[in-house]
Amino acid sequence: MAKPSIPKGTRDFSPVEMAKRNYIFNTIREVFYLFGFQQIETPSMENLSTLMGKYGDEGDKLLFKIQNSGDYFKGLTDEELLSRNAAKLASKFCEKGLRYDLTVPFARYVVMHREEIAFPFKRFQIQPVWRADRPQKGRYREFYQCDADVVGSDSLLNEVELIQMIDRVFRKFGVRVCIKMNNRKILSGLAEMIGEADKIVDITVAIDKLDKIGLENVNKELEEKGIPAEAIEKLQPVIMLQGTNAEKLATLKQVLAGTETGLKGIEECEYILNVLENLGGTQNELELDLTLARGLNYYTGAIFEVKALDVEIGSISGGGRYDNLTGVFGMPGVSGVGISFGADRIYDVLNQLDLYPKDAVNATRLLFVNFGEAEAAFSMKVLSQVRDAGINAEICPDSSKMKKQMAYANAKQVPFVAIVGESELAEGKVNLKNMITGEQSLVTPEELIEKIK
Amino acid sequence: MAKPSIPKGTRDFSPVEMAKRNYIFNTIREVFYLFGFQQIETPSMENLSTLMGKYGDEGDKLLFKIQNSGDYFKGLTDEELLSRNAAKLASKFCEKGLRYDLTVPFARYVVMHREEIAFPFKRFQIQPVWRADRPQKGRYREFYQCDADVVGSDSLLNEVELIQMIDRVFRKFGVRVCIKMNNRKILSGLAEMIGEADKIVDITVAIDKLDKIGLENVNKELEEKGIPAEAIEKLQPVIMLQGTNAEKLATLKQVLAGTETGLKGIEECEYILNVLENLGGTQNELELDLTLARGLNYYTGAIFEVKALDVEIGSISGGGRYDNLTGVFGMPGVSGVGISFGADRIYDVLNQLDLYPKDAVNATRLLFVNFGEAEAAFSMKVLSQVRDAGINAEICPDSSKMKKQMAYANAKQVPFVAIVGESELAEGKVNLKNMITGEQSLVTPEELIEKIK
Repeated sequence: MAKPSIPKGTRDFSPVEMAKRNYIFNTIREVFYLFGFQQIETPSMENLSTLMGKYGDEGDKLLFKIQNSGDYFKGLTDEELLSRNAAKLASKFCEKGLRYDLTVPFARYVVMHREEIAFPFKRFQIQPVWRADRPQKGRYREFYQCDADVVGSDSLLNEVELIQMIDRVFRKFGVRVCIKMNNRKILSGLAEMIGEADKIVDITVAIDKLDKIGLENVNKELEEKGIPAEAIEKLQPVIMLQGTNAEKLATLKQVLAGTETGLKGIEECEYILNVLENLGGTQNELELDLTLARGLNYYTGAIFEVKALDVEIGSISGGGRYDNLTGVFGMPGVSGVGISFGADRIYDVLNQLDLYPKDAVNATRLLFVNFGEAEAAFSMKVLSQVRDAGINAEICPDSSKMKKQMAYANAKQVPFVAIVGESELAEGKVNLKNMITGEQSLVTPEELIEKIK
Repeated sequence: MAKPSIPKGTRDFSPVEMAKRNYIFNTIREVFYLFGFQQIETPSMENLSTLMGKYGDEGDKLLFKIQNSGDYFKGLTDEELLSRNAAKLASKFCEKGLRYDLTVPFARYVVMHREEIAFPFKRFQIQPVWRADRPQKGRYREFYQCDADVVGSDSLLNEVELIQMIDRVFRKFGVRVCIKMNNRKILSGLAEMIGEADKIVDITVAIDKLDKIGLENVNKELEEKGIPAEAIEKLQPVIMLQGTNAEKLATLKQVLAGTETGLKGIEECEYILNVLENLGGTQNELELDLTLARGLNYYTGAIFEVKALDVEIGSISGGGRYDNLTGVFGMPGVSGVGISFGADRIYDVLNQLDLYPKDAVNATRLLFVNFGEAEAAFSMKVLSQVRDAGINAEICPDSSKMKKQMAYANAKQVPFVAIVGESELAEGKVNLKNMITGEQSLVTPEELIEKIK
């Protein structure tokens, strides 16, 4: 057959990539556990009735649909078939689809398991999702999401803890980040104030350009977007918003004095910032940023986004508070707040900054060279002791040429090699070579374990 | 909308189930690493050209196929459409399918990555697979496989190490098992000896019934299957095969004296058993079992299967040596040997024997009750210290009724609860309650950490 390939937009992960990815997932998972979150998993495939209509028309098109088993033509008239209406017939041919994100399956999960869940439910989920997007650099058709959410609690302490989690995750990675925070209610307040509720995205996009294009051009853009002059005038202090978070909030308080929603948003931000400050603050920068408008239709309170400071890349984590997670499945009133870590981008950041701990990548610590049956028999005895001590170790299964075995050791980046030839065998000892320093020493099995541990 | 559901044959995994499953996967993974295996992952979807024809006609039908995006009717004539040939048109509607096992994707991986792989390649893979099987008790449409294989080495030391791995995994689980071993070459030798190569499965099935139906009925069954009387006569010592592994091999040596292949198989078994014995043997029983015929068309040397001794359940692990893993993808001569652990059955075994370590299941060690803003502020300071010490801990985000908070603690099976009321706050101390013993004590934050660690 032809040379095999994999579907476009998908990836194989080789051992070194896997080790790095596991390091990322393990680090995030540790922090999730540290904060009392519990893991769940949902099936890769959901009923299409669960998925369709949840991600907009564009999202529906991007769902991977699974063809029904057996005779999927059953019940279809010739006329329907010949209509060749691909979108419409997909729902006849297919009842199931692959998960598009972790949020909708989570909402479905909460509804189905409501009786057994102890609320507030702090769940995390690390699983792949699939989207039939056009593949391009950094965008895949199969990729992992790492989500943590608290549902069933309105307390802002949840927001505080999520910020602490973000702070702790990136401290563990050794990546300097800026944690940006906004609040949907502040944006709603602004829209209310200028009487242009539907222009909020235009406004945040324009404000975001201040540094690049200057105040005059920002105002011009707002004008072009149809914002009345009077409203633009009112927005001036917001566009020019600068200083510390406290200073920004003070300015906003004046600007939004007349809007109840806006003031509520400011109050929430203040509360979160105050609690954090009393706890000693975050190690990473935490910045109030009004241009943050991610998932605007979805979030109802706090909005978070994380930017790496030392690498040019999009946001590497984000989230926020939402109302009514499960309403679409007939269970109203469940609000929540969550964050999501972008594993693929974090992978790129850690690669660029070379921040992987060496021992996260090298699995095998010790390799025994194989010189033949008698030597291998002794080596395997020592090997068992080494493994009993919890050290990852192996022996070359074939007594091939020394050069080949050392090439294997190098390819696997094994830090220690154990050589047992005739003389070592006679002495019951092992010649241990440190592959990094080149140093060699003749040691007993016990000394060997001591040296490597 | 209607009450949501999930596709039949799939499962949600709730926190306790996930914790148990993670314990299983982590234990197996640890042993894989201990023996120098490296993890890879392959995409959930493969090209159908990679999957089709690899699992027999029945397997092809059980593949989950993914409908092409966009206009999947393109290029189809009306006639083809109206033929309603579901199987044939599936290959027009679908180019991709979900992974059916980990072996074929692994073979595809080896071929595609041959230039970068250092052979012998010791890889493991823990990922879900999908089969459109009729769902029934214990059989799912989405389930995990845990495979470890060594490819590119003919050495029998690989077989030895795989047996050691099985032994170590089940020792770690605390499950008593019988590791059964056979060799395809011995079975081939038997077939050669009686001149009935295609009857090997009938023969092993009949032999397997000796204990249940007795010698006479076994011979009758063989006769019914068309084995000539002379051949049945020759088989008598094999049917009655008993005693230690050494005794069995001694008998087989006589019976198979005239067959080169059979003797080779005996030699391989002897070698594996001898090496293991020199290493102190296995802790679990290791039994030569000629009735083991799993994957007969696939395996070419050793065959393994693992049975739990204290639970009635099918095999919980199995594997063997195969030739020519990658031949179908144009890369001949790559042989290998591997094992697969059945996570779902191991889950059931550990459940039945109640063998999960308690701390594998309970994530959160300490819960702070929330009595209000001031108390929570102090609690969260202590909480940060506790987390810095690596202890998984949380605080109730809402200062709801004590009863509700304690119910939450119980539902999550948290072993320690920290109570900070007005008087504790005044003293800067914490009232620590051990939820198992009921014991309470007033402690400083430092003492708290000491007590829980």
